Amino acid sequence: MTLPFQHLTSTKQLSRDDTDAILRVAKEMEVVLRSGGDDRLKGKILASLFYEPSTRTRLSFEAAMHRLGGDVVTADGFQFSSLYKGESIEDTIMVVGQYADIICMRHPDAGSADKAASVSPVPFVNAGDGPSQHPTQALLDLYTIQKEHGQIDGLHITMVGDLRYGRTVHSLSFLLGLYKNVSFTLVSPKELTMPQKVTSFFTEKGLKYEEVEEIEEGLHADVVYMTRVQKERFADHSEYERLKLKYVLTTKHLEGKDCIVMHPLPRVGEIDTAVDHLPKAAYFRQAHNGVVTRMALLSMLLGAAK
Amino acid sequence: MTLPFQHLTSTKQLSRDDTDAILRVAKEMEVVLRSGGDDRLKGKILASLFYEPSTRTRLSFEAAMHRLGGDVVTADGFQFSSLYKGESIEDTIMVVGQYADIICMRHPDAGSADKAASVSPVPFVNAGDGPSQHPTQALLDLYTIQKEHGQIDGLHITMVGDLRYGRTVHSLSFLLGLYKNVSFTLVSPKELTMPQKVTSFFTEKGLKYEEVEEIEEGLHADVVYMTRVQKERFADHSEYERLKLKYVLTTKHLEGKDCIVMHPLPRVGEIDTAVDHLPKAAYFRQAHNGVVTRMALLSMLLGAAK
Amino acid sequence: MTLPFQHLTSTKQLSRDDTDAILRVAKEMEVVLRSGGDDRLKGKILASLFYEPSTRTRLSFEAAMHRLGGDVVTADGFQFSSLYKGESIEDTIMVVGQYADIICMRHPDAGSADKAASVSPVPFVNAGDGPSQHPTQALLDLYTIQKEHGQIDGLHITMVGDLRYGRTVHSLSFLLGLYKNVSFTLVSPKELTMPQKVTSFFTEKGLKYEEVEEIEEGLHADVVYMTRVQKERFADHSEYERLKLKYVLTTKHLEGKDCIVMHPLPRVGEIDTAVDHLPKAAYFRQAHNGVVTRMALLSMLLGAAK
Repeated sequence: MTLPFQHLTSTKQLSRDDTDAILRVAKEMEVVLRSGGDDRLKGKILASLFYEPSTRTRLSFEAAMHRLGGDVVTADGFQFSSLYKGESIEDTIMVVGQYADIICMRHPDAGSADKAASVSPVPFVNAGDGPSQHPTQALLDLYTIQKEHGQIDGLHITMVGDLRYGRTVHSLSFLLGLYKNVSFTLVSPKELTMPQKVTSFFTEKGLKYEEVEEIEEGLHADVVYMTRVQKERFADHSEYERLKLKYVLTTKHLEGKDCIVMHPLPRVGEIDTAVDHLPKAAYFRQAHNGVVTRMALLSMLLGAAK
Repeated sequence: MTLPFQHLTSTKQLSRDDTDAILRVAKEMEVVLRSGGDDRLKGKILASLFYEPSTRTRLSFEAAMHRLGGDVVTADGFQFSSLYKGESIEDTIMVVGQYADIICMRHPDAGSADKAASVSPVPFVNAGDGPSQHPTQALLDLYTIQKEHGQIDGLHITMVGDLRYGRTVHSLSFLLGLYKNVSFTLVSPKELTMPQKVTSFFTEKGLKYEEVEEIEEGLHADVVYMTRVQKERFADHSEYERLKLKYVLTTKHLEGKDCIVMHPLPRVGEIDTAVDHLPKAAYFRQAHNGVVTRMALLSMLLGAAK
Repeated sequence: MTLPFQHLTSTKQLSRDDTDAILRVAKEMEVVLRSGGDDRLKGKILASLFYEPSTRTRLSFEAAMHRLGGDVVTADGFQFSSLYKGESIEDTIMVVGQYADIICMRHPDAGSADKAASVSPVPFVNAGDGPSQHPTQALLDLYTIQKEHGQIDGLHITMVGDLRYGRTVHSLSFLLGLYKNVSFTLVSPKELTMPQKVTSFFTEKGLKYEEVEEIEEGLHADVVYMTRVQKERFADHSEYERLKLKYVLTTKHLEGKDCIVMHPLPRVGEIDTAVDHLPKAAYFRQAHNGVVTRMALLSMLLGAAK
């Protein structure tokens, strides 16, 4: 099982065949993980380069590598000597590509992943490049939806919160465009509605969507995908205070509903912790799914997936 | 050989049976270590989460994991993205528990270890939570005493320095309360005497102790446990200067004495480096003992100790 | 294949027999690396201590350790708790030597490597101590020259840029003094000429050298070794601006020339990126060579080289 590319920088590279393949291998990785991992990447090294901190994503990649018997070398943010000395991303990748068999990189600048991939002598995976792309997050979200519901075609997805700046919901939306008859309820304050590039995409793909402001209007869905609303997005502070309360999901919201609840995490209050105990709460399972999805990607890009 | 708990957050959890078991397994780990380690934790991942830096403790845990064939993912202080974003300890642990098979955590806040353990889906070990507990340090100290003297019952322990704020001497004192006929000489300035919670505990357990101010009065012991006296504890600076000199252990102090010398390290002058060369100096052996003690704990908590 | 020392702190320790042995083992390591690494250091731990950041060097050491099946524990700059608490280098090494089987250390202070080696209970490798020594860089440079040219005796080496403060060119010069009939062209501005300690050494060894200011005068060589010229070295800013342009190597410079181009990296403009595509450009191959050279050293110091 291989992929038709060596580097993954954007969800836009992915066809339905690609996501099907990745999701299938991820499912196989559940079995590998349950049996205590294996050694298919023994002798391989992942270079984990984090120009900005993202402990969650970094540890997930590194755990995935270890679960398959591989080794990891890590560099994060403040230790980046070469950065201080003004080295280009391209030079760093050219050098690190002499040390490692595969590279994942997080960087604050949009476009940095493409620069890196353009020169990388080994497979390269974008672990988030600023406001631009974070394809493995979108893939693990997709995997979670499929795992929880058995399929993706035909589902009704509600996205809640900051839909304007949320990289996660954009990437996921584009991936869901590969599936049939997916429909959307988009819940956000007026200041933070889904950008036109996404809604145009829905229209173009023939996917239905509605835009609403109240969370209650979005709960009759298969998936409720919560995101953080950030204070700094609001000129009017009182407006933020009002929304902060409106977009807190509680157990009461979920009574009698069939949806699962997802969240890219970290959360800072937008899901009441009492929700954690409901079987519907899928957000910690998402973290688990991140590991198997990355195990799938690492092994496919390194030619070690059956 | 298992323990009757899944998480170790405090020495107060430990019975004499528990410490006996841990010390016995630690002793077996000396053999494992001498033979070059083994693979009993192959396929297991330790997540090493250090919200504040403690290189010594972190490297000791990580080395212990590697000696048993396990892998490690690490996050320290400044890289903690989730911290910056205001995530709760509980959420972090819930997520990291999806990546790893066991977690050790250092955190500046007292009580953070209990919070973490309350939700952790995998075994959790407190690697120090602020002024509160640091149980693996106390266990390695206990192991050192037993290894050096062959037993713990009946020993005379002198503790020197900052007994008031020293987390290490408190935890060790409580653990020594599990043993018979241990007696104490407590050497400290008046400002830094052992807190009543510890001396009351000694009384309750029927353990003898005396409190003195001169280091010379404490040297007829089996163990002299040195600690740092910190300048910032003194209102009167000249008082600090006087004590700084009084509590520096030299080879002269140790002439004709039978004690071993321990120190949790780092030291900043309270043991003259000439002492390092005496067989009595056990403080670097303590560092070695930290590895085998942690090998014991990791393997017991993961069900891999015979 | 062993070395007549346990610790490597300086190139001055090395005889011609030593460099011959290291280069021979490094060459064998190319085969090991191509075959996917091996397990000769399984069960061994490298402690990678970086008191100042140097991602390139650190990752190279760590990758080398992993390629031979070993494990790594890492501490870099800002996380060094013991530093904050005023611990001596000697104490840190004494402790870390209880955790690991071999230590590499980068430190900003000249002489720190000798301090560390004087107490280290396990093999110690200097990964750069301030302005003083960085022996593994010199060895990988030497290995690169030999690999590219098949030999070192009789070669003509041009060094360009900051020859006054460049630790790299000094260390390499001293190592090249072990070889026969090597000759040098030293290209630098007057402010940054090679120090007398190096030119005297050339004279003493009977090695020819010439000092020039124009890069064009140095291109009839077997090796052109470029280095960065740093702005802060110049009192006269316009002088810096003039030189900055003069010492930028371009493809035009290299037309019809037989030299290889080396650079310790990072570069910040002194080699035009168009040069990267020429077979002559050896600087990214140098990064690869750093891994095999360090594999050689680690295995020799740990008694695992055939």
